[in-house]
Amino acid sequence: MPPPLSLSLPSPPPPLQPLSLLPHHAKAPSHSLALSSRPPPSSVCSVVPARHSDYFDPRAPPPPPQRDVYGQPPPTPAQGTPGARVFASYSIYKGKAALAFDPRPPQFVPLESGALKVVKEGFVLLQFAPAVAARQYDWSRKQVFSLSVWEMGTLLSLGPTDSCEFFHDPFKGRSDEGKVRKVLKVEPTPDGNGRFFNLSVQNRLLNVDESIYIPITKGEYAVIVSTFNYIIPHIMGWSTFTNSIKPEDSQPYSRPQSSPELEWRR
Amino acid sequence: MPPPLSLSLPSPPPPLQPLSLLPHHAKAPSHSLALSSRPPPSSVCSVVPARHSDYFDPRAPPPPPQRDVYGQPPPTPAQGTPGARVFASYSIYKGKAALAFDPRPPQFVPLESGALKVVKEGFVLLQFAPAVAARQYDWSRKQVFSLSVWEMGTLLSLGPTDSCEFFHDPFKGRSDEGKVRKVLKVEPTPDGNGRFFNLSVQNRLLNVDESIYIPITKGEYAVIVSTFNYIIPHIMGWSTFTNSIKPEDSQPYSRPQSSPELEWRR
Amino acid sequence: MPPPLSLSLPSPPPPLQPLSLLPHHAKAPSHSLALSSRPPPSSVCSVVPARHSDYFDPRAPPPPPQRDVYGQPPPTPAQGTPGARVFASYSIYKGKAALAFDPRPPQFVPLESGALKVVKEGFVLLQFAPAVAARQYDWSRKQVFSLSVWEMGTLLSLGPTDSCEFFHDPFKGRSDEGKVRKVLKVEPTPDGNGRFFNLSVQNRLLNVDESIYIPITKGEYAVIVSTFNYIIPHIMGWSTFTNSIKPEDSQPYSRPQSSPELEWRR
Amino acid sequence: MPPPLSLSLPSPPPPLQPLSLLPHHAKAPSHSLALSSRPPPSSVCSVVPARHSDYFDPRAPPPPPQRDVYGQPPPTPAQGTPGARVFASYSIYKGKAALAFDPRPPQFVPLESGALKVVKEGFVLLQFAPAVAARQYDWSRKQVFSLSVWEMGTLLSLGPTDSCEFFHDPFKGRSDEGKVRKVLKVEPTPDGNGRFFNLSVQNRLLNVDESIYIPITKGEYAVIVSTFNYIIPHIMGWSTFTNSIKPEDSQPYSRPQSSPELEWRR
Repeated sequence: MPPPLSLSLPSPPPPLQPLSLLPHHAKAPSHSLALSSRPPPSSVCSVVPARHSDYFDPRAPPPPPQRDVYGQPPPTPAQGTPGARVFASYSIYKGKAALAFDPRPPQFVPLESGALKVVKEGFVLLQFAPAVAARQYDWSRKQVFSLSVWEMGTLLSLGPTDSCEFFHDPFKGRSDEGKVRKVLKVEPTPDGNGRFFNLSVQNRLLNVDESIYIPITKGEYAVIVSTFNYIIPHIMGWSTFTNSIKPEDSQPYSRPQSSPELEWRR
Repeated sequence: MPPPLSLSLPSPPPPLQPLSLLPHHAKAPSHSLALSSRPPPSSVCSVVPARHSDYFDPRAPPPPPQRDVYGQPPPTPAQGTPGARVFASYSIYKGKAALAFDPRPPQFVPLESGALKVVKEGFVLLQFAPAVAARQYDWSRKQVFSLSVWEMGTLLSLGPTDSCEFFHDPFKGRSDEGKVRKVLKVEPTPDGNGRFFNLSVQNRLLNVDESIYIPITKGEYAVIVSTFNYIIPHIMGWSTFTNSIKPEDSQPYSRPQSSPELEWRR
Repeated sequence: MPPPLSLSLPSPPPPLQPLSLLPHHAKAPSHSLALSSRPPPSSVCSVVPARHSDYFDPRAPPPPPQRDVYGQPPPTPAQGTPGARVFASYSIYKGKAALAFDPRPPQFVPLESGALKVVKEGFVLLQFAPAVAARQYDWSRKQVFSLSVWEMGTLLSLGPTDSCEFFHDPFKGRSDEGKVRKVLKVEPTPDGNGRFFNLSVQNRLLNVDESIYIPITKGEYAVIVSTFNYIIPHIMGWSTFTNSIKPEDSQPYSRPQSSPELEWRR
Repeated sequence: MPPPLSLSLPSPPPPLQPLSLLPHHAKAPSHSLALSSRPPPSSVCSVVPARHSDYFDPRAPPPPPQRDVYGQPPPTPAQGTPGARVFASYSIYKGKAALAFDPRPPQFVPLESGALKVVKEGFVLLQFAPAVAARQYDWSRKQVFSLSVWEMGTLLSLGPTDSCEFFHDPFKGRSDEGKVRKVLKVEPTPDGNGRFFNLSVQNRLLNVDESIYIPITKGEYAVIVSTFNYIIPHIMGWSTFTNSIKPEDSQPYSRPQSSPELEWRR
């Protein structure tokens, strides 16, 4: 039932990108060598994990682009000041591929009253990168899939033997609609102890037809569940609502008027 | 067993409201057209979802009224300042209706000691709107139901085949008691993969007798569970209690006195 | 199997306390009357609930004492200032008794390094009050039980048919040890849809032998579970740890030294 | 099946450390005596717990070292100021051993854009200490195990009858690789009501071969689950990401460009 571990790359693989993340990392190739000499920790609980993380991990995805997904440069506070943007992801490294989960914030607009309103939910960007050598992943060839809140809920509710498929067309409603087709499949591993995440991308614009598999252990899936439960209320903006609750500004109570808006049970 | 998807509107439908949310949205009708030409994403996991959200989503409920449920205008900070009120909801759009979940904060009163006390739990306002065209919902005809913490707990504990009914009379204890009767039913879909949310409102004051159904997929229900687990401690005011914990103000310890108030296990 | 709903009060009941919480509440007796004329909302899901909450709820427990459990007056900020103490509880009102859950913060001490350390976990104070009339509870006769983190965990892990008992002696280790014995029992209701919370107190110092039962619906128990999961990390002080994480103060990395303290997996 | 409760200490036990945590604690030996005269609370729910916590608990692990795991002295704010570091742990005390869970923060680096990026996930340090007398534990002989996020997820997903083993080599990839071997085993107790945590350490550098067992009740495990679910998003840095969401700084929206980075479902 579960698909074989294969990596189809019909288009010739692009030249391997230098994996340096920050300037001084490039100066420490021996660090990278030291890393690749470490065997993975093992566990009898589940699929043998091959992941670990280290400082300036050469396997990690590069930092996000200076221009964000909304086509705007982000505000640039002084380096490392309180309130600066923080990027965090959850990365899983396996033999044939790596998968990183990156949460992205919701969008707000100001209302005339001075209040703010969520107009667009955030999401979690899944980034799949193929392995090109032992513990090396080519993030320049990554394929991405932005998981909506509803899709995250679907993964949360997935029983251990359930499967799931999501279809995305990044150009839906635009002139290139139908030219890129992405399918994310999540299905149980044969031993029932984990899951495969499989992203297939057919891109007729770039003549690309790729499929990347990565096995996820039960423990890693539990981390996904824990982080999704945490992040959902945040990328829906509910946490900014709760942050705006000011007990000391609570209004004096007056009897609610009768109106459909003011339904009261009690 | 599950009720048929019907929309009873004995009273003549009111004229369709213009769906503009903000002034400059009304200037972009072509954006709305672009939207309605997009087919919904699909999934093999559950009931086919027909929801998506976009900037200034023409399907979304209008912003909350300037006067809040307590009959008071909210404090009006300068536009977009830190600490401004934030409105967030979770909206689900389907073929015949839309359903929005809006959290509302608890109420506090100051005590003589200078501390604050929660005097009224918050709630989650459910807003049901009927569809009037493809991807268009008439929020002027919405019906609302304010879900208490206890009712949210009941939905959290609902097994996949359980059903649930809540009865509200917004005028309970007042002169118009009994003239408006609301029933919220939550029951499993025939395939067991989702749930129907059904709000019936009998309003003898307005001569209205409506019933709105909306199917909720398993993934959407998982989002509801995740957001309810998040929001319950906040609308009960427990988060304002925890925010008031100041480690640096922790009192020097002295042996507790013996009194019923000071029960200690150890 | 489940115990009968009985209320044993061998000592003569004390005179009923006036239920006013704040001065101006005493001026509104008609409000109280209006309240007691409201029938409870009903639900087909579970034990019929008889709870609701209102502004200055005459049924609610009085505000906490000016002197806290550590025998110290709390710091008194100006009324309603940001950062003021906030009291929040979760109260369940039934025909024969009411039960309020009040979270209490952990205690901290400063270390020589300037950091702070949790020295005592917080707890949740359970307050049981007998009903003395329809929708009136005598909080002056309340019996309390302080639920530790470990006991909260036990309630979280309780299966639907499991029972549980906790024994407390508030004077354990002191001269009056053994003179007061408290037993909290949690057991399933006969229909399996809820739970009984039963607090028995034998106090030989005051010649009191009381037992208070209150039925808790499945939905109310789900609220307890949700609030316990929320509050446990806070009353253990883990949230003050996480609040003290300052990304901008993150130290430059240096290779950890080898020592038992510095165990590293990778 | 479950291993016998044994404590193997082939190397001669080091001299017992004075258990004073803070200067004035050493002056109160009678307090310690008072403590050890208290019988443990009991419960019919599970393995009889022998844990309790008290102010300046003589059983508790000592405060963390002035130099942290990264070999750097932590920043030292004035004593007890807001924003000071806070140390919190979850400690379980049993007849033969104590086990403390200490969360440790992630590491961040500034990016050129001024933003910050998580470069190393935090972890939870497990500290096992053998009992040396009634309610006395020798933390100078503690053995530690740093539990990664992935391992925490594995414990979260452990069914009631599942077992689990993790292997760590603190010197993996360094010259002393293979000289220290740690194995953490988690397995069900014979009655199925709890779990054994067992840490075995073979340290050929110090000629140590130790194994420490501690039984964990179902309620204590539920606290572990609750705190792990809470702490995972924090030690992954996701909470610093969400804290950096500023609704008032939300960017004006512009149509996303088409690029692999900008995948959109809708």
